[in-house]
Amino acid sequence: MKNINVEKKYKIHRFRNWAPEWLLSYRRGFLQGDASAGIIVTIMLIPQSLAYALLAGLPPQVGLYASIFPLIAYAIFGTSMTLAVGPVAVASLMTATSLAPLASPGSPEYTFLAIQLAMFTGVIYLLCGVFRLGFLSHLLSHPVINGFITGSAVLIAVGQLKGILGVSVPSDTVFGTLVMLVSSRENINLPTVYIGMAAIGFLYFARSSLATLFKKVGIPEIQANLLTKLAPMVVVIVSTFLVSHFNWSEQLGVKIVGSIPDGLPLLNYKLPNIEQSKSLLMPALLIFIVGFIESVSVAQALALRRQQKIRPNKELLGIGAANVASAISGGYVVVGGFSRSVVNFDAGANTPLAGVFSAILMMIVLVGFTSSFYYLPHAVLSATIIVAVLGMVDLSTVKHTWRYSKADALALLGTAISVIAIGVEPGILIGVSLSVLSYLWNASRPHIAIVGRVKGTEHFRNIERYQVETVPNIVFVRIDENLFFGNIQAVEDAVHAILHKHPKVTDIVLLGAAINHIDSTALEVLCTMNAQIRSMSKKLHLAEIKGPVMDRLKNSQLLRELSGEHFLHACEAFEALADK
Amino acid sequence: MKNINVEKKYKIHRFRNWAPEWLLSYRRGFLQGDASAGIIVTIMLIPQSLAYALLAGLPPQVGLYASIFPLIAYAIFGTSMTLAVGPVAVASLMTATSLAPLASPGSPEYTFLAIQLAMFTGVIYLLCGVFRLGFLSHLLSHPVINGFITGSAVLIAVGQLKGILGVSVPSDTVFGTLVMLVSSRENINLPTVYIGMAAIGFLYFARSSLATLFKKVGIPEIQANLLTKLAPMVVVIVSTFLVSHFNWSEQLGVKIVGSIPDGLPLLNYKLPNIEQSKSLLMPALLIFIVGFIESVSVAQALALRRQQKIRPNKELLGIGAANVASAISGGYVVVGGFSRSVVNFDAGANTPLAGVFSAILMMIVLVGFTSSFYYLPHAVLSATIIVAVLGMVDLSTVKHTWRYSKADALALLGTAISVIAIGVEPGILIGVSLSVLSYLWNASRPHIAIVGRVKGTEHFRNIERYQVETVPNIVFVRIDENLFFGNIQAVEDAVHAILHKHPKVTDIVLLGAAINHIDSTALEVLCTMNAQIRSMSKKLHLAEIKGPVMDRLKNSQLLRELSGEHFLHACEAFEALADK
Repeated sequence: MKNINVEKKYKIHRFRNWAPEWLLSYRRGFLQGDASAGIIVTIMLIPQSLAYALLAGLPPQVGLYASIFPLIAYAIFGTSMTLAVGPVAVASLMTATSLAPLASPGSPEYTFLAIQLAMFTGVIYLLCGVFRLGFLSHLLSHPVINGFITGSAVLIAVGQLKGILGVSVPSDTVFGTLVMLVSSRENINLPTVYIGMAAIGFLYFARSSLATLFKKVGIPEIQANLLTKLAPMVVVIVSTFLVSHFNWSEQLGVKIVGSIPDGLPLLNYKLPNIEQSKSLLMPALLIFIVGFIESVSVAQALALRRQQKIRPNKELLGIGAANVASAISGGYVVVGGFSRSVVNFDAGANTPLAGVFSAILMMIVLVGFTSSFYYLPHAVLSATIIVAVLGMVDLSTVKHTWRYSKADALALLGTAISVIAIGVEPGILIGVSLSVLSYLWNASRPHIAIVGRVKGTEHFRNIERYQVETVPNIVFVRIDENLFFGNIQAVEDAVHAILHKHPKVTDIVLLGAAINHIDSTALEVLCTMNAQIRSMSKKLHLAEIKGPVMDRLKNSQLLRELSGEHFLHACEAFEALADK
Repeated sequence: MKNINVEKKYKIHRFRNWAPEWLLSYRRGFLQGDASAGIIVTIMLIPQSLAYALLAGLPPQVGLYASIFPLIAYAIFGTSMTLAVGPVAVASLMTATSLAPLASPGSPEYTFLAIQLAMFTGVIYLLCGVFRLGFLSHLLSHPVINGFITGSAVLIAVGQLKGILGVSVPSDTVFGTLVMLVSSRENINLPTVYIGMAAIGFLYFARSSLATLFKKVGIPEIQANLLTKLAPMVVVIVSTFLVSHFNWSEQLGVKIVGSIPDGLPLLNYKLPNIEQSKSLLMPALLIFIVGFIESVSVAQALALRRQQKIRPNKELLGIGAANVASAISGGYVVVGGFSRSVVNFDAGANTPLAGVFSAILMMIVLVGFTSSFYYLPHAVLSATIIVAVLGMVDLSTVKHTWRYSKADALALLGTAISVIAIGVEPGILIGVSLSVLSYLWNASRPHIAIVGRVKGTEHFRNIERYQVETVPNIVFVRIDENLFFGNIQAVEDAVHAILHKHPKVTDIVLLGAAINHIDSTALEVLCTMNAQIRSMSKKLHLAEIKGPVMDRLKNSQLLRELSGEHFLHACEAFEALADK
């Protein structure tokens, strides 16, 4: 008897350890919000998962598969209460561009590789989570992210034009697609164009003015906003009904989704071979970076609105688990997406149980309703994608950024243009290089001021801005930047220029109040500088070096061989050296 | 009459504008130093240019060609008085590894591509010079450069073992070479091994102890050092004599250089096709980066020893012109090399005329003496290379660096291991990534301190280190770092943690005395933070923001929407806010 009790207790204890926090503290009052958010998100998720699968070059059911188990996995391992994971536009585009050279879209091998890509991405997430590498997401500046999203949106929208026009075009680049669209203008299917344009028109109207209209007839703001999110589902239902009723697919040649295999996904994951693994590694890494940034920034923004907190390193585990779950159940890459997360939040989701509700509803769709989408026209899916991604283009940011920092604006435009002109993967690499380069470029021109003492005080100020005391044989040089390989050359040049300009100076004092870090390249250059200054029979002094910096310098060659002294404060140096 | 005079004046004027400065101010006293330095450098240059051509996989005359016109071009366009340009080990290795996948070593196409590589590298130098991109050379930290040189030296030394052993091995990697050397041990040519070992022994002795020996017999230090530099030429002469006299090449199978076409190089440069251009672009870029860093650091070090100055942006033009000259005259990539430049300096070179002397001597060698090298054994060239490159390995630096900064030491070792294990080009890219990442990693953990007022003063100090006054409703946060995309997240996290820990705080004051730059990502995050703090009915204040930073912030959203105020000094904030 006793034994069993202990075991039971142990089990509960284990469950408490492993169960997600939100489940343990779940309250009845949460249920209504979670259920309604789950329903509304599912209504958005159905057309989006079909459309994004199309964008990724995959059969429609793969999009549906990616919308079931990943949601459950995230509910267990994630930390955001309201992040909605699933297929998103940019990751779908990246899947398409990285798999295009490896297999032909729609083929079983292509699908197999897409599943592997999700697995690789998931494993990278998990590894980064285990090794707490969440800081990697800070390697991309906002201008680069904006540029990347804008460029991708243009790329996706142009790519979907073929769906609206009812032609097939095998080109990947914007320019190539446009040229081929023009050259194949005779194959354009006019009924498809009408359906596509009508869908775009309605979706655009729903996005821009429907909420205002609803509010005018007295519907409260949040409900009005949520209702507009149902527009894609309305378009899906109406267009499917029309195509099926008038048999437009056979009579007018409108391309339709066709039969989607029903039933739940099978859980049988097979390992890829080494050749395949090699070619998937880099794409998975890039999808990871982009997906993680999107997920974390959405999760963070939503968490802050309710004074909650997410933990980026645990978030890595959550989204990693979602991707692994997607791969195991025949889905493709999933991300915490922006639009559905916001809807989830606004619809009142309190916990990830909302995602579990969505997953259950998607299962029901897969088991019983896949045949409903038989007559759904491709043009409507393309229209859904186009309206969704063009909503991501934010030109006002370009303007703001340009006004504040030309370098940042150029990084934004450079990334956007690279994505459009060269492609998604080189685009993001160019973007990362641009942001790092622009930072290094800034850092390579440190602010260096010659300072003097404000009379009667202990303050030292820039001699160009203030009336200050100076002494002919001393020059006080304040460097307002950490010293590292990127800027130490500029510091050396500046010191040489000062010595050249003021030949009477015998003592040069470096003030380090704004220096928090000196790397070993900078240390070496300072040593050389010190030796040179000594060989001119002058002295290099240090002052106001911060505690942590001094701790590291203590045992270095620089301090051992320093031609001058080390002063705690500039005043001390002023008095000690001026007396000579 | 008048007209002619004007024209003559005009011509002189033009000559004065275009002629290098050193030529216009040339003094008779310079001549002796320049001539003797020219002779000594030539004696080093002959075996080195033959050996490095071998290392680059090129026929010996290509090395000689690269030692003529580039020296003259640099004399005209360069700014260093003592830099000796010509073939060097690392650039030769990089030439070999980048051309290996494109053509078979020794073939005319291979030579053609090597010439193109010099042209591309030269044009990159010239472009960077015109656009003043000299700062690019600061993208590599010293640890990465040291790691790269060490790794390359090992790679080169192992690669040359085959020359010493008299076998041919087609592998590029260290591991592959070692495996193949072991497996082909039956083909080892023993006489070649003896010659090679003897050469290595003598060269090593010359490098390590000969100078001391000379000094003991009363030769002054500088002369003693210079004499040891003639050792490679002595080995060349002695070994050539022995091989030719005893006919070892035919009787014992010792591999020799064979016939070198005599006569000056033809100046006929042909353009490559687009396919070739594409595959040469990346290698040229990497050779440019590595070569520029080597050249500039050598030139700078030597210039400082004589209180002269070089201008990095003009240096780009000088070395660029040298590479273009090399390509036009059938040579390959040239760099301002370390060892010959030091010898040039020590031998008393006063101006680049020393290089012109070397060029003339090399021309004489090419016209009349190429047949002298017929019996020169390959093993001696390999020995020259091995002793030269192992002298570049500096293990004490690893120790120093490790003691000062673990991150920098790991960057050094990571680069060296990558070069040895994966190859030169990925190695340098990994090195660059490592140095940038380690910098960003440092910058992503900014030093943030909560400060209080030192009683009775206007100073604010860290509350953890000093006894200071604080007020319960205000928290003063000092950020000791520029704010940019890499660290702003950490700042936001820290501020949220502070607000969470001190719920009574209503006013948070950011002190910006150590902030020199805020990029647009950081600005955006600060705006979001400000809005969040406002939504908690608290206020965000700024204080001690520097002039240039304030100038840019003035028109930004942050200052327009700031929930609190902007104070010039922390004291003002202390008094204004504590009164509440």
